[in-house]
Amino acid sequence: MSFELSLNTGTTPNLTLEQAAEAVATSGLKHIGPWRHLLQQAGGAEKSASIISAAGLSATTLCRGGFLTPADPEGRSAALESNRAAIREAATIGAGELIMVVGGLPAAAHLIGGSGDPADKDILGARARVAEGIAELVPYAAEHRVRLVLEPLHPMYAADRAVLSTLGEALSLAADHPAETVGVVVDTFHVWWDPQLEEMIARAGEENRIASYQVCDFNLPLAADALKSRGMMGDGYIDFPTISRWVAAAGYSGPVEVEIFNEQINTQDASITLETMKQRYQQLVLPSLEHAHVGAPA
Amino acid sequence: MSFELSLNTGTTPNLTLEQAAEAVATSGLKHIGPWRHLLQQAGGAEKSASIISAAGLSATTLCRGGFLTPADPEGRSAALESNRAAIREAATIGAGELIMVVGGLPAAAHLIGGSGDPADKDILGARARVAEGIAELVPYAAEHRVRLVLEPLHPMYAADRAVLSTLGEALSLAADHPAETVGVVVDTFHVWWDPQLEEMIARAGEENRIASYQVCDFNLPLAADALKSRGMMGDGYIDFPTISRWVAAAGYSGPVEVEIFNEQINTQDASITLETMKQRYQQLVLPSLEHAHVGAPA
Repeated sequence: MSFELSLNTGTTPNLTLEQAAEAVATSGLKHIGPWRHLLQQAGGAEKSASIISAAGLSATTLCRGGFLTPADPEGRSAALESNRAAIREAATIGAGELIMVVGGLPAAAHLIGGSGDPADKDILGARARVAEGIAELVPYAAEHRVRLVLEPLHPMYAADRAVLSTLGEALSLAADHPAETVGVVVDTFHVWWDPQLEEMIARAGEENRIASYQVCDFNLPLAADALKSRGMMGDGYIDFPTISRWVAAAGYSGPVEVEIFNEQINTQDASITLETMKQRYQQLVLPSLEHAHVGAPA
Repeated sequence: MSFELSLNTGTTPNLTLEQAAEAVATSGLKHIGPWRHLLQQAGGAEKSASIISAAGLSATTLCRGGFLTPADPEGRSAALESNRAAIREAATIGAGELIMVVGGLPAAAHLIGGSGDPADKDILGARARVAEGIAELVPYAAEHRVRLVLEPLHPMYAADRAVLSTLGEALSLAADHPAETVGVVVDTFHVWWDPQLEEMIARAGEENRIASYQVCDFNLPLAADALKSRGMMGDGYIDFPTISRWVAAAGYSGPVEVEIFNEQINTQDASITLETMKQRYQQLVLPSLEHAHVGAPA
């Protein structure tokens, strides 16, 4: 089956893994993309794997590895260790795709609870350390049959969360590694504005790099916490039919994940969220995926 | 003289043109970049030209033209008329460079006080209308010896203010027109995160398109009004020495304008703002401009 919907647990942050899995199964969906802290809270990756399979679900992705930009040896070493643990967890829950949010500038590390050098605003240096970190993790990921999935983040998060801001840059970084071990995710919120988007989605398809398609909208005004400016499809300003057509035409036919950080959505009853996302998906996303897919090579 | 500092009046929004010109002259600077509403408030462009020259200043840019994305005939016609007026005003005050903020999606027009179709989220269509509008304005701008200066805005403003988000896209749009009539502005706040920035600044230089270099910082957390997240150089996360080096190496040696929308800076005494911006400029921007300029072709 193509284009099956998946719930990223970032959309339902108040549920445990067990609660989220149950809500997803009840709503009739078959996939879930959990965050790592839910695995820990559930008693570890093996226990989490049981919870997911007991609910009749499969894990589409694990969120998240990354944060590879520390410049100090201790910070780098801790980052690599954490990513190796994430790779093992992804393998254990059967998620072939580990989403990588690569990290921001050392000068902004304090904003997300880390430490760094307040003077280090060198984005080129930070990008180079991301490339080194990915290269170092690739053999370990390959050994565990987990793909490192580079996530370009919206440029408004370039300072504090990800110095990787475009799909093109993610593909350039991936190019040094096999497609089965390093992929990219197309998350509409992060990339919808990019004038090179159509071309880069096509390139990602040709290079077999599209590991996940994530949909959520871009709301305005931005939320007080800018991270929570994501919206339900249709509530913001993204042209989902067009981007979905490009993604399917590029040959992607895997699950479509919904990851929404939004105060109102995150605190309402999960069954409402799941119902709404199913409706909006049917209305705004799926028709274009299926239409474009028909014409795609088999 | 190269690299002379200029005050964009967006930095001192509570001053009239006369007050701003006086503050600039008192601080020892020689250039000002006014916004159109100040010209109107001062009694028109001719009166404004007198105010600026009486203070011993020159106008570096006029802010702003643009907003060329309306899809309805009336909206398009009004936008073109407003831009023709802006071109005449720029010519009258002796500003050779008219900054163009191209406009957002019709669906988001209501957010900035306009009207549009709530269903029209077609960013490709909006970009096409920008290209058409620029093409239509070029002969009029050339006749008035005013350059239309395309300003790529940070992608966080792609929905409501500018569907032009990268320097590369601005250069592609400019490419159809002579360099003396269509240029680009490099505003650090908008483009600092772009992985293609070094390459595109170099291209802009080769094509003689760099019409203005504007400096201000990218602050975090984002301000409640996202437009006011701009900061004094050094207060945020931008690597000014690196970007300034690229701009000077590309052959730019014109004025450097400071445009900061920031609640605290916009409400403090303008003399403090001017002193601080002079200091930070000397410290973070000018040395790299001068160093790179020495090695640039004469």
